[in-house]
Amino acid sequence: MPTGIVESPVKIDPRVAFQSPEVWAKVTGKAIYGGDLMLPGMLYGRILRSPHPHARIKKIDIKQASGLAGVRAVLTGSSIVQKPYGIVIDDELPLAEAVVRYIGDEVAAVAAVSYEQAAEAARLIRVEYEELPAVFDPAEALKKGAPQLHAKFPGNIAWERHLERGNCDQAFREADIVVENTFTVPPIHSTYLEPTVCLAVSDPYNGLILHTAVQSPDQVRTIVARVLDLPLSKVRVIGPVMGGGFGGRVYGNLKLYIIASLLAIRTGRPIKMQLTREEEFLVGRPLIGAELKLRMAVRSDGTILAREADIITDNGAYSAQAPWVSKTLSERNDSVYQFKAIKTKVRLVYTNKVPTGQYRAYGNQAANFATESLLDMAAAKLGFDPLEIRLKNCVRAGDVTVHGLQLKSCALADCLKAAAAEIGWHNRKEGRGYGISAAIHSSGSVVFDKNFRGAAALARLELDGRVSIFSGEQDYGQGAHATFTLIAARALGIPAELITIHTRDTLASPFSIGALGMRQTTIGGNAIRLAAEQLREKIVQTAADMVNEPVIFEGGSVKSASGQVIELPAIAFRYYSLTSGLTLVGEGKYVPAESAYDKSGYGNIAVTYSFAAHAAEVEVDKLTGEIIVHRIVAAHDSGRIINHLAALGQVYGGVTQGLGMSCFEGYLFEGGRVANASLADYRIPTSLDVPAIVPLFIEQDDPEGPYGAKGLGEIVQIPVLGAIANAIADTAGVRVTDLPITAEKVFLALSGWECEA
Amino acid sequence: MPTGIVESPVKIDPRVAFQSPEVWAKVTGKAIYGGDLMLPGMLYGRILRSPHPHARIKKIDIKQASGLAGVRAVLTGSSIVQKPYGIVIDDELPLAEAVVRYIGDEVAAVAAVSYEQAAEAARLIRVEYEELPAVFDPAEALKKGAPQLHAKFPGNIAWERHLERGNCDQAFREADIVVENTFTVPPIHSTYLEPTVCLAVSDPYNGLILHTAVQSPDQVRTIVARVLDLPLSKVRVIGPVMGGGFGGRVYGNLKLYIIASLLAIRTGRPIKMQLTREEEFLVGRPLIGAELKLRMAVRSDGTILAREADIITDNGAYSAQAPWVSKTLSERNDSVYQFKAIKTKVRLVYTNKVPTGQYRAYGNQAANFATESLLDMAAAKLGFDPLEIRLKNCVRAGDVTVHGLQLKSCALADCLKAAAAEIGWHNRKEGRGYGISAAIHSSGSVVFDKNFRGAAALARLELDGRVSIFSGEQDYGQGAHATFTLIAARALGIPAELITIHTRDTLASPFSIGALGMRQTTIGGNAIRLAAEQLREKIVQTAADMVNEPVIFEGGSVKSASGQVIELPAIAFRYYSLTSGLTLVGEGKYVPAESAYDKSGYGNIAVTYSFAAHAAEVEVDKLTGEIIVHRIVAAHDSGRIINHLAALGQVYGGVTQGLGMSCFEGYLFEGGRVANASLADYRIPTSLDVPAIVPLFIEQDDPEGPYGAKGLGEIVQIPVLGAIANAIADTAGVRVTDLPITAEKVFLALSGWECEA
Repeated sequence: MPTGIVESPVKIDPRVAFQSPEVWAKVTGKAIYGGDLMLPGMLYGRILRSPHPHARIKKIDIKQASGLAGVRAVLTGSSIVQKPYGIVIDDELPLAEAVVRYIGDEVAAVAAVSYEQAAEAARLIRVEYEELPAVFDPAEALKKGAPQLHAKFPGNIAWERHLERGNCDQAFREADIVVENTFTVPPIHSTYLEPTVCLAVSDPYNGLILHTAVQSPDQVRTIVARVLDLPLSKVRVIGPVMGGGFGGRVYGNLKLYIIASLLAIRTGRPIKMQLTREEEFLVGRPLIGAELKLRMAVRSDGTILAREADIITDNGAYSAQAPWVSKTLSERNDSVYQFKAIKTKVRLVYTNKVPTGQYRAYGNQAANFATESLLDMAAAKLGFDPLEIRLKNCVRAGDVTVHGLQLKSCALADCLKAAAAEIGWHNRKEGRGYGISAAIHSSGSVVFDKNFRGAAALARLELDGRVSIFSGEQDYGQGAHATFTLIAARALGIPAELITIHTRDTLASPFSIGALGMRQTTIGGNAIRLAAEQLREKIVQTAADMVNEPVIFEGGSVKSASGQVIELPAIAFRYYSLTSGLTLVGEGKYVPAESAYDKSGYGNIAVTYSFAAHAAEVEVDKLTGEIIVHRIVAAHDSGRIINHLAALGQVYGGVTQGLGMSCFEGYLFEGGRVANASLADYRIPTSLDVPAIVPLFIEQDDPEGPYGAKGLGEIVQIPVLGAIANAIADTAGVRVTDLPITAEKVFLALSGWECEA
Repeated sequence: MPTGIVESPVKIDPRVAFQSPEVWAKVTGKAIYGGDLMLPGMLYGRILRSPHPHARIKKIDIKQASGLAGVRAVLTGSSIVQKPYGIVIDDELPLAEAVVRYIGDEVAAVAAVSYEQAAEAARLIRVEYEELPAVFDPAEALKKGAPQLHAKFPGNIAWERHLERGNCDQAFREADIVVENTFTVPPIHSTYLEPTVCLAVSDPYNGLILHTAVQSPDQVRTIVARVLDLPLSKVRVIGPVMGGGFGGRVYGNLKLYIIASLLAIRTGRPIKMQLTREEEFLVGRPLIGAELKLRMAVRSDGTILAREADIITDNGAYSAQAPWVSKTLSERNDSVYQFKAIKTKVRLVYTNKVPTGQYRAYGNQAANFATESLLDMAAAKLGFDPLEIRLKNCVRAGDVTVHGLQLKSCALADCLKAAAAEIGWHNRKEGRGYGISAAIHSSGSVVFDKNFRGAAALARLELDGRVSIFSGEQDYGQGAHATFTLIAARALGIPAELITIHTRDTLASPFSIGALGMRQTTIGGNAIRLAAEQLREKIVQTAADMVNEPVIFEGGSVKSASGQVIELPAIAFRYYSLTSGLTLVGEGKYVPAESAYDKSGYGNIAVTYSFAAHAAEVEVDKLTGEIIVHRIVAAHDSGRIINHLAALGQVYGGVTQGLGMSCFEGYLFEGGRVANASLADYRIPTSLDVPAIVPLFIEQDDPEGPYGAKGLGEIVQIPVLGAIANAIADTAGVRVTDLPITAEKVFLALSGWECEA
């Protein structure tokens, strides 16, 4: 039986364990979430969705709906100005026009004075559909004659990539053994606790204000402004407290925001919209499902030579971030080991199912499951210890990987050793299976926008001597505010209690790409450090001018050469008085070095890279296939840890989500219908399922991250999958290659059906 | 019969007539006022007030109130930490302790889940009082043995000032005639349309947030932080749209804010409080009432020599701004004419009546009524034309007045001539009375805070090429945003439509003293001009760097020497890209020259000074005393007018309020009780009472104001009073010296009773 989260053997340094005071607002129920927001004259919006996976809209009759008491607006695709949009590919419209492409597609929208009236009005809209042949399987969708989803994308290929590094064919010829297999991963929902809510307000003076909790308010603002043809500065996103994001809410729900905004502009009234849990499963853009056909070439001495991959990712009906996720899924994991050659083909395929998107780790966890499974199969074939083959091949500091990533810092080998030692790799318990797995993830991606690689922040000395930080980075539950607080406090040499982080309003904060690509601590943190450092200089200079002698700033106050003490409020007041109202502001402009990747994507795509090795101890009931995960040791190189408390939280949560993806979660489809669109049917691990989780931090300074830190938030989920899959195979003697690894699948494999060992 | 507002003969230059788009939100009902605000878990607060003008609190029993369903907190003076506070004198406590000093004094406060429950709970609080002798007349309060209000202020004198400039006794000896009289002015309420509302929210992360519309959010923030002992940066004031202020809401209702905050901190819940109209009359701090005993020395050639004044101002129970108002009332008006000597005694006296405060013009209108009435009496005695005696004595550009004000620009003589010409001074209608009056008012007072004389503003170039202005100045209905927009647009050379003014959040805007002392346009406007000018320079510099050649910024876009056009969004984007998220910000720091006034107050107390002359045409029914004001010509030297539309609005509104104070308004007391605490009993002019108002702007550039502008918002009300009083005396043949001048008083005076001509 799982024993639950145990105390980390990591000794928490109280200097690096800070809980942001906003946590108090959450635990005492005082935090204000989107669902709490109200405004006078507020209307409720509801969306009518397609019941068909693929159909032509012949006619929409809104007469009855419009006539219903309390209804203030009914929008259809033909009654609004439609502008195609997307994140990578502009393949969506605010409301379906002519064709619907999945069950859930937005067909019409209603605003009414109550939620019930809006829902009733949506039901009263009569849509005449002509059903079209639909396609649900990407392999089928690729076939000639398959139903086509988008005229602009013949063959249903939304995006594809063919890539070769080194000479793959030659590497395979040089190999002593070749292992191959096909692995499948279903779409996975981020299952944040709080369903998406948005309150849109439009007036001629302020423009459009969107109240919504999202990981990247600035990107939402940019896209919404573009789709609605509004000047960027006339769109403002204000974030209430966020009930979890887990990477699934980088853009929140763009279509909901656009529709709410259209209703707000049309009615002149505030519009509140909230997705139901079922809708979250339909339109919440789960992590893309994938099929990975992998071949790996290995020499008999255990040297990994090359990997070949043919990957199909299942886009669903629209693309969102799926091209980027497909790219990461297809290649990031290749940089864990010293591959000589890589050949990858990845195709993103439209199907008449829910549009996909992303989740913590951006698909890298799916690749980890596949590659790490395959590597164990190679080790078994060669009679190699899985730990040894990893230690032999894993990347090290100073390496340049097969994709050109330059590893400035890397303690992956130490992570592998530490995880193995802690799990008892060489001291195994009877009847238990052991698995290990390694991962890399970019820490501070710089590839999202060619004009914007870094981050900016402002640090303002307030009149009371406290310091306010303005940043576009987001705390969505992961504890970013606490980490930023510690960075600013350290840069200024003042207590953390004097720092307040402001991130939730695009009007007041510098632009940011947002919380993705593990860029918050590394990139955002660096900007905050620089802002605080510049403020520090300005404080020293202002104080020196006040006393007309050299000063030092130490331990929270400034002392002059002759022994005068100048307190921070006095320094703030001095500047404020001299300028008639301004206070000292430090600007932090963190601009990473010009990206060094070429057109093929070869080169550095992040500020630095984080590493991890997880080891799992599991038990499998050979009769029933039942799996019990007993322990996960999570050894991490995330550089120097800024905030141990937040870091532990990331590991506990990420490992649990990795467990969910390994053994519990995944969309089930019946044709185009999601068969498990509820938290009862889409089961995530509960507290009873969570194993003992042992976080280990192999700390060393990264030269680029703030105070040596690197990102942790995404990589925590990645190696769990390989470790659990390998541990199950280790004890069961059979290997399930199709996630999630359930008792049923293990049972079937043990019975010799379907799966191969 | 009055004919209502007529078109101004001023030709409106469309380049200087701008309506801010927020006006649309108001006229379409979409503007969000304080009363509209709601928050989840919000409680309603109510205050229990003293029913006695003066009493000792023997016991407060809150048991029954606390036990009432829905009640969440009951606060009394002994259950909170009390810190004396005030604006000039710290003579108030958040809740009365031991003693109540007027009918309305705050005794206890309740928070409950509904307004009705809160009101019922307040009723259920049992207070045992021991009534004390009370004093209502300031003259009585000054007598020996009178009831004493505050132990720290024996003799009931809150503040006093004895001042002599020049040799007054000698001037009186040199005089050919001396006129003297006593004038009285009752307290006047600002009667803004929207009663005071505040929503206080307190949480450990954000600290205290006060949502309230107030003319000086920053000063409210400072005082509330001090009283509640909170760090200044942990108090934030956010302003909803304001339903009028008229100078009466510089500090809003501090006690309401403090009590709401205390309830929010105590309950951990948002607290909404709203004053009833009756409460507004009790605690809304009306303009101080005054009695002015004046003597004026004049030579037979019409030269005004000196004035002696003994002024008593009626403070009510607590002081607020009353000392400052008493000072302005007692001396500002002295600078209208070239007095050789002035002797003034002013005493601010505590009485057991409503605490007073201020209103548009800061008491200067009361002085205008008195002095201008007296001047007409002198003219009559000498057989001088009232216009001629004013033209002979009025101040001119370059003058230094008796109080040391240096008049950089002054078109007062031209205003007098223009008003006289337009009213038909030398071409009078039969049966009508004509009066004229002159005024000065400080435009951009610098005396409120010795450390803060100016203003700061930020001008930010947005990525869409629009410009956002951040300023602590306030638009509370007077059109400041439109004026600021025009200033910024002119400084940048871009259309006004591209400018957005942000002023309503103390988190995002520089500190400001707020909307008082006619400092918005002059001081705030200068800061905005400087910010826009600095932004302009940064735009030019960034563009020049982009094209690597000299550029000029003209007509909204930048052109290089070789003819390249660089649009503003591209320039914003360039900087944003270089800094990873920042946009160009211009800082405006307007710091007026070091104030040159000495300890006695002699010297310059403002950036510059505005002037006005009003002329009135009235009709008086000799049988009944009924007064009909037919026309008011309002000739103003407010420098160069920035926004004619807003300026016209100021004149129409200010003249109407001046008419109200002249003939309609004023508190009526029965003992300590306000007998007319409703808008039915406290009658302000209605549309039927408003005469034809003819604004005239005598425009010339002031050297200090932005684009030559000076303030207008307060001075519009001042000379109305003297003009109407003199016009009534002119036709009635009797002079009423006690405001308001009602039909009853004129009738009595015509009957030979009570009043002297």
